[in-house]
Amino acid sequence: MRRFELAVRNGIVLTMDSEMRVYNPGSIGIADGRISYVGGDEIKGEEEIDAKGCIVIPGLVNCHTHSPMTLFRNAVEDQPLEKWLKEYVWPVEAKLKPKHVRVGAMLAAAEMALHGVTCFNDMYFFMEEVAKAAVEIGIRGVLSEGLVELFSSRSSEEVLKKGASFAERYHGWRGLIWAALGPHAEYSCSLEFLERVREEADRLGVGIHMHLAEIKPPVEEFVEKHGKTPVQALDEIGFLKRDVIIAHGIYLSDEDLNILKRRDVAIAYNPVSNMKLASGAARINEMLGLGIRVGLGTDGPGSNNTLDMIQDMKIASLLQKLRYMDPRSLPARSAVRMATRGGAEALGLDDLIGSIEAGKRADIVVIDTKKVRYQPIRDPYTALTYCGSGSDVRDVIVDGRIVVRDGILQTADLEEILKRFSDAVADLFQ
Amino acid sequence: MRRFELAVRNGIVLTMDSEMRVYNPGSIGIADGRISYVGGDEIKGEEEIDAKGCIVIPGLVNCHTHSPMTLFRNAVEDQPLEKWLKEYVWPVEAKLKPKHVRVGAMLAAAEMALHGVTCFNDMYFFMEEVAKAAVEIGIRGVLSEGLVELFSSRSSEEVLKKGASFAERYHGWRGLIWAALGPHAEYSCSLEFLERVREEADRLGVGIHMHLAEIKPPVEEFVEKHGKTPVQALDEIGFLKRDVIIAHGIYLSDEDLNILKRRDVAIAYNPVSNMKLASGAARINEMLGLGIRVGLGTDGPGSNNTLDMIQDMKIASLLQKLRYMDPRSLPARSAVRMATRGGAEALGLDDLIGSIEAGKRADIVVIDTKKVRYQPIRDPYTALTYCGSGSDVRDVIVDGRIVVRDGILQTADLEEILKRFSDAVADLFQ
Repeated sequence: MRRFELAVRNGIVLTMDSEMRVYNPGSIGIADGRISYVGGDEIKGEEEIDAKGCIVIPGLVNCHTHSPMTLFRNAVEDQPLEKWLKEYVWPVEAKLKPKHVRVGAMLAAAEMALHGVTCFNDMYFFMEEVAKAAVEIGIRGVLSEGLVELFSSRSSEEVLKKGASFAERYHGWRGLIWAALGPHAEYSCSLEFLERVREEADRLGVGIHMHLAEIKPPVEEFVEKHGKTPVQALDEIGFLKRDVIIAHGIYLSDEDLNILKRRDVAIAYNPVSNMKLASGAARINEMLGLGIRVGLGTDGPGSNNTLDMIQDMKIASLLQKLRYMDPRSLPARSAVRMATRGGAEALGLDDLIGSIEAGKRADIVVIDTKKVRYQPIRDPYTALTYCGSGSDVRDVIVDGRIVVRDGILQTADLEEILKRFSDAVADLFQ
Repeated sequence: MRRFELAVRNGIVLTMDSEMRVYNPGSIGIADGRISYVGGDEIKGEEEIDAKGCIVIPGLVNCHTHSPMTLFRNAVEDQPLEKWLKEYVWPVEAKLKPKHVRVGAMLAAAEMALHGVTCFNDMYFFMEEVAKAAVEIGIRGVLSEGLVELFSSRSSEEVLKKGASFAERYHGWRGLIWAALGPHAEYSCSLEFLERVREEADRLGVGIHMHLAEIKPPVEEFVEKHGKTPVQALDEIGFLKRDVIIAHGIYLSDEDLNILKRRDVAIAYNPVSNMKLASGAARINEMLGLGIRVGLGTDGPGSNNTLDMIQDMKIASLLQKLRYMDPRSLPARSAVRMATRGGAEALGLDDLIGSIEAGKRADIVVIDTKKVRYQPIRDPYTALTYCGSGSDVRDVIVDGRIVVRDGILQTADLEEILKRFSDAVADLFQ
């Protein structure tokens, strides 16, 4: 019997490989941070996780969030986005210091780990604090400074430099962090600035993470002003390449979608935030039909309010069924794919993560599906998507390291994180 | 210091009383199955539940389900309703025996208890088995035989007699069960039959539970045939009274809503099922604006696929925000109200249950909101609605009896229930 450093044994293993292989029971052998074996054989490990009755998936990839916004969670809810931002978020964000971002990001990284998220695509301020938090908890981050050019008191070049400087220092850091440039949105950045962002991204060899077409009015204003859609304009300046991931993409025309396909741009779909803020519903059927890479995102904890990708898989599917008035839209298998391999593809990381295959880095999540709400499991994709809760995540492995075991965070003291978070919230909002 | 049989101490108590009082910290004293005290005082109990950091709410009321359909969970998903019913559900339902319904209902009742549902409004076949299951687990049920008159091989009077006979035997049974008559829907029952149902309901002193206006085509066909809407027709035959609860009510005109208001008919809103089957979105803003009683339902586990009312509160709110493209729709406080007191009102049980007030029966749920996903709690309605999962329910009291403690079912052997369920599924579907 083969023996590995770490073995996950006897689970219902959804590999999410190109053949969508399922091993039931299946086991995974891990060594040197990589998956060495996956299949139906009995294996042994120096350390072992018994996954009997549990569904085992690749680590969830959260394709769009603003993780330190845990600080703003459960505050001033059920309000229009603009009111919420102007009256509540921005005045407090003006007071934010790196120490606040650090504790907000620590809570978020702990929460994501505990809910099976092993990689997240994040945009906020003081991103070096987010990088440190992700590394301390032991999960992967693709991190970008949010560059709000037009609303900034600084010059465009200074704004850009802040993003580029972070990217230069943290891209590839500790094997868990990738950097990106984060021009905020079509309404907060000029086209001239976005041209410069593209130049810098090319120079640094990093990707670009940007909100686009989340709400209707700015898209209409853009068309009014420029005589073309934001996507057309971005295409004309050479901005759109394979390294770009667009958050939301709700108000896109057929031609926009064709351009995004042609340029191989990826989309992050954020169903909960899009419903909660009444933004609308992205055209996921068309996107997937065209072969556009689509990942799933929670968006920030101010507009969700959790970082629970498993709950969001269900809502992702429900929203598409309603959008097209067709219950066949975004079936369970596609939802699970979007939340794992699809996300890795959207971030350009699918050579490393996103599926359980020999040779890939070992990012693995065990969900306790012995619970009554999953019974009978029958089809594991269905059980996970429609019966799942992030609260049922039991064990999480990132890069071969056990980050969560039996629901307990292994890499940091959760009580201490909660205490510091509570103090920071009190300090910020007194 | 006052002393009670059972005390729930030091929680964040959402009473859901007419003033929406919140005690934080708050405690609840229970004796003889009733709430004797709720407030901010320190109290003692012969038995005690420490709810520090936990949100405490009245038991959740699931206003529409088909609980034994746990048997059909996770089978043939992402399909149109008609295909799912005709090709899969109905052929198996034809083979259903009381013993199958019993184990399906036992699993469902256990699941509901574990997720904080203390009362459910159920329609299916062999309802005496559901009554026994509810009583065995120790939760309340409002139970009706589903009367599918037009698709039955038996005479209308025989169909009616089956429903009436169950109601006669089980209404008031064991202090936990109420019966109702369950004419299935506007497309499966004739108006003549519905007149007879009304007569029998009046004779027996029980309510009526009926699907109405869930999908568009039958409503349109009804109007074509009768020259009026189903609601207008039901009103004309005197069917609509305060004891009627309608499941779904998606395709209702303004006049229909006014009639329902005038007759004080209640609605069960089932957001997950309505999205999953692409049925549509009920007009909850108008309903609540008119003062119509609205409760929340999961619908059956074949079209949800859980009985998790806490998850469904979130989706209930999200769907309304999208429906009206207004983030102020169905705010968190209204969602929690709908899932508790609103449901009790919709079922006409609010003199007994639905809020935490001295004199009411003691149906109480403690949710473990110390978990990271709820932090910071700030507004407890928001934290519960937007961060909640039924998997975080910790303790459940029904009629003063502890049914779930520390997440463990106290009233029955869950392993045995799971074993029998698994055997029944194998037997039915081999």
